[in-house]
Amino acid sequence: MPAPLHFHFDFISPYGYFASLQVEQLAARHGRTVEWRPMLLGVAVMKVMGLKPLLDTPLKGDYVRRDVLRHARKQGLHLGRDLNASVGNPLPAARAFYWVRQHHPELQAAMVHALYHAFWAEGKDLSTPEAVASIALPPGLLPAEVAAGVASDEASTLLRNAVSASIAAGVFGSPTLVVDGEPFWGFDRLGEAEEWLATGGW
Amino acid sequence: MPAPLHFHFDFISPYGYFASLQVEQLAARHGRTVEWRPMLLGVAVMKVMGLKPLLDTPLKGDYVRRDVLRHARKQGLHLGRDLNASVGNPLPAARAFYWVRQHHPELQAAMVHALYHAFWAEGKDLSTPEAVASIALPPGLLPAEVAAGVASDEASTLLRNAVSASIAAGVFGSPTLVVDGEPFWGFDRLGEAEEWLATGGW
Repeated sequence: MPAPLHFHFDFISPYGYFASLQVEQLAARHGRTVEWRPMLLGVAVMKVMGLKPLLDTPLKGDYVRRDVLRHARKQGLHLGRDLNASVGNPLPAARAFYWVRQHHPELQAAMVHALYHAFWAEGKDLSTPEAVASIALPPGLLPAEVAAGVASDEASTLLRNAVSASIAAGVFGSPTLVVDGEPFWGFDRLGEAEEWLATGGW
Repeated sequence: MPAPLHFHFDFISPYGYFASLQVEQLAARHGRTVEWRPMLLGVAVMKVMGLKPLLDTPLKGDYVRRDVLRHARKQGLHLGRDLNASVGNPLPAARAFYWVRQHHPELQAAMVHALYHAFWAEGKDLSTPEAVASIALPPGLLPAEVAAGVASDEASTLLRNAVSASIAAGVFGSPTLVVDGEPFWGFDRLGEAEEWLATGGW
């Protein structure tokens, strides 16, 4: 069984959302699966790198807003968020994912899509355990158990370890797709990652 | 006559170098020409944005070095520089370009290629007027006049105005290709810029 592709992303990253809609098909075209690795760029990587959040960076923030809307138009995707509004704290969403992965591993991909859809397509707040539990959850998950899971020490530890592992793997941006140890940063590099998969690299 | 494509770049940017080798053919495929806009990311934009130089940023610097070498391998390009070594000050090279554009406009594209080739393929230092004048210059340019031009107040003013114009256009990274007012940042977006040119946008 070939190794899964490691898909590192942040729930508040619009480019991570765009990539999440394509990465499973990309992997399947090459007999691979996706290992989902949500992380927290703001909490961890910005501190390591000493950078500002993308949308708060002069010039670059304006470009990114324009580029995100341009891409959404092209793909016919509706974005339910105002890109000038605060994105809030992605920590509860990321904890929810790792709690689901631990206790309902068969629902982990569905949980990624449910969280991303709620945040980017519907514009919902995900910054508290209760908010995360109130989205349209994958069938089989109960809101009360999700809220308790998000608030648990277990989820906190799982997320902390996952963020450390992403940083140890060199991840600094969302999305980053790691193909057999080779990292490709950026939604706009999915094509190159696929070329690497198809050819075995260069 | 359709408007030229505005190609903003920094001579110390490896992605700018890669793009410089393709942008004229891209433009020509759509009946366009290239307006060359060298700028200084380090001197101007980093101050506006408050960021560190790309290669000095933890995690991201390591990724970029890997990605640049990966791309060079793929394209069969020889890089004559150690990516861990200091890139030096691109100001003299950028001044040389604007001086040539002013006094020998027919040589401006050749001057971009001569400077980029000297810096990235041959690994030459370009951080003084004399260093810039000692590269393989386009036929028609004399080393002594180039050295004097780089050191002139005229070149200084031309470059300062050009950098201001790039920042006013929202440019924050190299390369940025502006197609009829629509900016595309990154070597990996040339394909998207061409799609915009071909379709008129979306």
